[in-house]
Amino acid sequence: MSKLTVTGVTITPIAVQDPPLLNSVGVHQPYALRSIVEVHTDAGITGLSEAYGDDPTLANLHKAAAALPGLDAFDVNGLTRRVGVALGQVTPDSPTELVGAPSVAKTVASTVSAFEVALFDAQGKALGRRVCDLLGGAVRESVPFSGYLFYKWAGHPGEEPDEFGEALDPDGIVAQAKWLVDRYGFGSLKLKGGVFPPEQEIAAIHALRAAFPDHPLRLDPNANWTVDTSHYVAGALEGVLEYLEDPTPGIPGMAAVAARTGLPLATNMCVTSFDDVPAGIAQGAVQIILSDHHFWGGFRASQKLAGICETFGLGLSMHSNTHLGLSLAAMTHLAAAVPNLTYACDTHSPWQTEEIVEPGALSFVDGAMPVPDGPGLGVTLDRDALARLHGQYLGCGIRRRDDITPMRAVHPDWTGERPRF
Amino acid sequence: MSKLTVTGVTITPIAVQDPPLLNSVGVHQPYALRSIVEVHTDAGITGLSEAYGDDPTLANLHKAAAALPGLDAFDVNGLTRRVGVALGQVTPDSPTELVGAPSVAKTVASTVSAFEVALFDAQGKALGRRVCDLLGGAVRESVPFSGYLFYKWAGHPGEEPDEFGEALDPDGIVAQAKWLVDRYGFGSLKLKGGVFPPEQEIAAIHALRAAFPDHPLRLDPNANWTVDTSHYVAGALEGVLEYLEDPTPGIPGMAAVAARTGLPLATNMCVTSFDDVPAGIAQGAVQIILSDHHFWGGFRASQKLAGICETFGLGLSMHSNTHLGLSLAAMTHLAAAVPNLTYACDTHSPWQTEEIVEPGALSFVDGAMPVPDGPGLGVTLDRDALARLHGQYLGCGIRRRDDITPMRAVHPDWTGERPRF
Repeated sequence: MSKLTVTGVTITPIAVQDPPLLNSVGVHQPYALRSIVEVHTDAGITGLSEAYGDDPTLANLHKAAAALPGLDAFDVNGLTRRVGVALGQVTPDSPTELVGAPSVAKTVASTVSAFEVALFDAQGKALGRRVCDLLGGAVRESVPFSGYLFYKWAGHPGEEPDEFGEALDPDGIVAQAKWLVDRYGFGSLKLKGGVFPPEQEIAAIHALRAAFPDHPLRLDPNANWTVDTSHYVAGALEGVLEYLEDPTPGIPGMAAVAARTGLPLATNMCVTSFDDVPAGIAQGAVQIILSDHHFWGGFRASQKLAGICETFGLGLSMHSNTHLGLSLAAMTHLAAAVPNLTYACDTHSPWQTEEIVEPGALSFVDGAMPVPDGPGLGVTLDRDALARLHGQYLGCGIRRRDDITPMRAVHPDWTGERPRF
Repeated sequence: MSKLTVTGVTITPIAVQDPPLLNSVGVHQPYALRSIVEVHTDAGITGLSEAYGDDPTLANLHKAAAALPGLDAFDVNGLTRRVGVALGQVTPDSPTELVGAPSVAKTVASTVSAFEVALFDAQGKALGRRVCDLLGGAVRESVPFSGYLFYKWAGHPGEEPDEFGEALDPDGIVAQAKWLVDRYGFGSLKLKGGVFPPEQEIAAIHALRAAFPDHPLRLDPNANWTVDTSHYVAGALEGVLEYLEDPTPGIPGMAAVAARTGLPLATNMCVTSFDDVPAGIAQGAVQIILSDHHFWGGFRASQKLAGICETFGLGLSMHSNTHLGLSLAAMTHLAAAVPNLTYACDTHSPWQTEEIVEPGALSFVDGAMPVPDGPGLGVTLDRDALARLHGQYLGCGIRRRDDITPMRAVHPDWTGERPRF
């Protein structure tokens, strides 16, 4: 095989329309930011990936990109080293408040991830292999995802209602779930909670249970409850939920909740980097880790996390932020190659009406995503969409995720402070 | 790239001359057993590896080999699954008493390893890539090894003295160390202890320190000391040793030693599979794990272990049993690709006078092994040597490792029971 050496990188920020999904911090802005990373090689092969698109991420991606020409596309260790050096004394800045505290390690990890995924795509294209083959082989040819339910307004303030409709009570959530299950076949359901007082969200879960007697259910209030409230909700929903996600902030808080419930606790907020793992395990704070290659450091780092979960008897699933098809393809290849993926993965996909990859490669079948055929990630960048969504980025004025300000437009006293209940 | 599918496997047991090296269990037999694994593919490419050669291992290798035709050579997950099924309710049987308790998981892991290494060799040959490139990229182009010192008899009982000479006291050990350092350039030294009363071994370490003021020193009594004796030796050698290896049996015993010494403890006996890791970490039993791809489950499993060590702040080095060049090449590629290899690796290489790979690819330079050029492991099987060493296997009569019986020939009351001191 000829060498496969990085010659340059193109980073294109894009903005995609996003509905007014509610969470504990506030509400999604009208546009979500992503960046499309293209890593070019001397073989004429370009590897693709999708990353966060906020200003701090873009600055880090550009800093790191400048250090990549000359890198062997197989040299993941070299990538990590170069990114670490390039970012140097970077100021940690988390792309979203919903994935735990920012740190230098996480900033480096998310930057590494953006390029590592593209390198694997390039490797796969060069070898005529799927990314999942390069990650140890698919243990499943189709990856189960869960239907992701959100409380939402009918439309962004001052705008027409969107196609998804309002969902602000149990009936609305059940209707939303029916749409997701009918359309995509999801076999499990997750409600983004932490929006309304716990009683209302408990009622929504019971309504879902009545409407979907056999669907595993999850509830994620994004750390918007005190330990006491968490105990109350856990008691009310033990035997109903498959797991409870991030009820309360921090490892000690989660450990206090875990100590008094039989309900497994999951997290993508209190154990979000390898630095958090020892304390999380020692304190028994979580039973399931919701991994995310975007901020854990890429495919190999996610497999390292999977190995830790397997070794320590923790469950494993996958977290999602708003994303498009390049991320979905990456998540699917990774999930296909991780034997101990014990729960269906999260995805925001159904909420996105715009796409960056050409149609055909990614379609849910019975709530699961068949692994795209290779080579690489098995998806093709839609250049027209890229141009259009980049134009949308230039025009939309949004430069970092902010769920608080748009909520303040409706509730002037809103602070987004948690735990609120 | 064309497919790379396993078409068949050849397993050839060999016996190699081994000097009378002493340890806590007894003494090495005149021959050590290994097996050479050749995995054939439809591309005409054959992947190589070296494994244990005792009867139980061979039976498992053959059982698993029958399940491999049709396997994609990239599909490590599929290999693990097939081996697990093929071995089914295997009776656990450790190839040596010196690498911890046997278990089904370890039996499966060592069988997987034998084939996984060969699959990576085949992948590398197919892609024109070094194995270390496929493992994430070399973070070092030369892997440091330590000089492995043994108490030894002049020759096997009833035979002429061998070329290495006798070493039964501090002077003999220092002379041996000088030979190893002069000839190979090793920058650190490890004494296999647990042979003589601790005072004598402490004296040997002090003699080494006097002769080699700057060489990091290690002592490995293979769990032949009680906790009290371990405390005594640790106290005597704190500040002298780089680490103390497996002073006493079991995780609780090691934890009791660790609690009362500042000397880091290393192990290849009490934490030898992923099942041991949680207790080992929770009890603080060890500060350094001596990994070994042969029994941890291969390259990927060893990287998983490395990830755990990095995450939990444990040191990492590499254990060695008697081995030849195929294993040395595999160890070197793996060690080259593991960023957090924090100590020089062990190797028995200097004690082997016979070899299975063609000369030229493997030569220590300043105590370190340069990573062989690819493709694959970068070594070539010496077919004449294979035939000769297989003949030696057929003729030698040894079918599993047994350090006790040959010691009994000299000391009729010998039981090999530990801890003896």
